[in-house]
Amino acid sequence: MKFSPLVDELIQSLKVLPGVGPKSAQRMAFQLLERQRSGGLKLGKALEAAMTDVGHCQSCRTFTEEQRCSICANPRRAEAGQLCVVESPADVLAIESSGHYSGQYFVLMGHLSPLDGIGPDDLGLDVLDERLASGDIKELILATNPTVEGEATAHYIADMAKAQRLTVSRIAHGVPVGGELEYVDGTTLALSFSGRQQV
Amino acid sequence: MKFSPLVDELIQSLKVLPGVGPKSAQRMAFQLLERQRSGGLKLGKALEAAMTDVGHCQSCRTFTEEQRCSICANPRRAEAGQLCVVESPADVLAIESSGHYSGQYFVLMGHLSPLDGIGPDDLGLDVLDERLASGDIKELILATNPTVEGEATAHYIADMAKAQRLTVSRIAHGVPVGGELEYVDGTTLALSFSGRQQV
Ligand SMILES: [Zn+2]
Ligand SMILES: [Zn+2]
Repeated sequence: MKFSPLVDELIQSLKVLPGVGPKSAQRMAFQLLERQRSGGLKLGKALEAAMTDVGHCQSCRTFTEEQRCSICANPRRAEAGQLCVVESPADVLAIESSGHYSGQYFVLMGHLSPLDGIGPDDLGLDVLDERLASGDIKELILATNPTVEGEATAHYIADMAKAQRLTVSRIAHGVPVGGELEYVDGTTLALSFSGRQQV
Repeated sequence: MKFSPLVDELIQSLKVLPGVGPKSAQRMAFQLLERQRSGGLKLGKALEAAMTDVGHCQSCRTFTEEQRCSICANPRRAEAGQLCVVESPADVLAIESSGHYSGQYFVLMGHLSPLDGIGPDDLGLDVLDERLASGDIKELILATNPTVEGEATAHYIADMAKAQRLTVSRIAHGVPVGGELEYVDGTTLALSFSGRQQV
């Protein structure tokens, strides 16, 4: 015995969500059915619209339902000739929130990972190379994550950009402002020391 | 700056799910967009269908898109005149899986909780009382959870059934089969002692 077909289908379908197993799928389905019908319906429509209509920005690869995202479509973002390479759309949001960068982005949607079969073309590095060759970019800022894969990806892209004689920079890594030294991990501390500047 | 409208709407809508905050909603949205388009579309359609068409069984109150659920619609389940009261559809599934009960159910969809404003009518106890008065039920089995609220709800329903001179029983609570005493909580152990049987 199972639940009714529509309830079963809902529980099975919820398991597509990351971190959602059979028990939480069931709990989610019941909560929506009991208390959140309109919210559940709204989610259903949002999913259908997003899965069908959201693609990638032709210029920076981030998610958007337009041909170009709002940042790439803004001519003022191109003025400085800066292009910042990040791993995910969430990184763009974080950098925009900091309010100190007004250039353009290139979103890799991942990082180089030979073991998972993710190579340069999967990250759109062929597209990036064309953009670097266009002459519009003056400085390439590498803001991939300070992980082994992120660093390897940054090195790979730095070599590409240097071959085009572009200025390449890497964002600084170190102790976060307000962070206490004793709670900062060793890798961050090491980066913090190797990146020290004279005062 | 936010994400594109459709992506934003998806992230906001995902927060309706229990236990999903802004960060996990974002992670879920990106994972669906990057790797699970067809699964996400399927979930969208399942949500729309379930939120629109799933109602409550007229006889037992469990979730179903039919007027009566498959158990209530099965005449053989009525033969023994047994009615088992549980708190949720998941409890029906658990009891069915055990394979030792072949009667009917009544699903409260919750428990009495005066502080949350959940009274007898919210649990369909008026409907249950009519069923008990119909003469079709010989034994009422109380299988609410062994919590304070579950016990209070069981007591309330037991009084209703006794007023109709029906046999009322409560499922036994105690140490689970295969469980080790030292890992069983005190309340369960107490129930286990008070429910001891001569051997
Ligand atoms: Zn873009
Ligand atoms: Zn039913």
